Amino acid sequence: MPDVSVYYFPIKGLGESIRLLLAYGGQEFEDVRIPKEIWPQRRSIAAFGQVPVLEIDGKRYAQSVAISRYLGRKYGLTGANIEEDFLIDQNVDFVNEIRLAASTVQNEPDPAVKAVKRAKFLRDKCPFYLQKLDEIIRSNNGHLAAGKLTWGDIYFAGLYSYLRYALEIPDLDQKYPSFKKLQDYVLSLPQLKQYLANAPQTDF
Amino acid sequence: MPDVSVYYFPIKGLGESIRLLLAYGGQEFEDVRIPKEIWPQRRSIAAFGQVPVLEIDGKRYAQSVAISRYLGRKYGLTGANIEEDFLIDQNVDFVNEIRLAASTVQNEPDPAVKAVKRAKFLRDKCPFYLQKLDEIIRSNNGHLAAGKLTWGDIYFAGLYSYLRYALEIPDLDQKYPSFKKLQDYVLSLPQLKQYLANAPQTDF
Repeated sequence: MPDVSVYYFPIKGLGESIRLLLAYGGQEFEDVRIPKEIWPQRRSIAAFGQVPVLEIDGKRYAQSVAISRYLGRKYGLTGANIEEDFLIDQNVDFVNEIRLAASTVQNEPDPAVKAVKRAKFLRDKCPFYLQKLDEIIRSNNGHLAAGKLTWGDIYFAGLYSYLRYALEIPDLDQKYPSFKKLQDYVLSLPQLKQYLANAPQTDF
Repeated sequence: MPDVSVYYFPIKGLGESIRLLLAYGGQEFEDVRIPKEIWPQRRSIAAFGQVPVLEIDGKRYAQSVAISRYLGRKYGLTGANIEEDFLIDQNVDFVNEIRLAASTVQNEPDPAVKAVKRAKFLRDKCPFYLQKLDEIIRSNNGHLAAGKLTWGDIYFAGLYSYLRYALEIPDLDQKYPSFKKLQDYVLSLPQLKQYLANAPQTDF
């Protein structure tokens, strides 16, 4: 079995999807969680300046979506053809667009500017984003795309806790039950049981 | 031959890569360029709220990177295996990360805030981004990944004029000649000749 490590911060964030995909594939890995305080000393891990980084037998892989697609193909979690693969890619990119928009608002350091940005986000973008995502999942039989389990579902399930945190909408699970239901479905897959039982508990 | 349209604004922007890929594949298409002024009336085209949108026999495709990958697979412009495909995906996502960071600064409406953001971007992120991208292209024999022509090259070539515009670095071509050289290489492919001879001229 190859020697695999995942380098990321001690949160789920953008790293959890990769951890879940490895667990799904039955791949043992070193789950390296780097506290933010020592990140400057460990930065050389990241060829692209950022984590998550996946390392397989010394080779390093960056960009969380690209890594997730790669592992998905490795473990047979793709669509049946390039049409279905496209739909997975499209919907994963859409989820990421929402995540990026939400975290851009959340990370604004000036409270006054943040309040303005947040009001604009909640008025102009957020309703469309969440209704559209809900529609996608419901029309795909509870999946992100292709009406069946693909790497897109595992990507979503890994990211959802962080997405909810970034959106700062306390009743998100109640408003859009399809989101939490998809995450719950993935997290109940028997392949993930051992990883989830042993992983450090974090909120997002 | 399928009935194909590309819907986008009358610029290269995020749409040009899709137009170039279709031209490369010998696929005729209606190049629908929607002036910003009438965009609100045409918005219903975009299931995800945004253009570019690709339409094939009435089916609509969104998300520019996902569309480009799909067309790349259709026209035989992938890597030789999932490792090479990963490298294309990783490097395309990196180019897009740069584009997004640059355009976030460029689109800041408040001039004072923009000046601060721009100084920070030019100091903290831009040098790393551009040096890394230059290193990637030079180590791939002038290509974006896998040392050969892939959809990643065409994606880059389509986006580069907009990337340069968003970066607002007047001597970018001189500082990093590998970027312009890769774009020139793609734009000189014989498959693109007819499209480029007839396409409306725009700066970015």
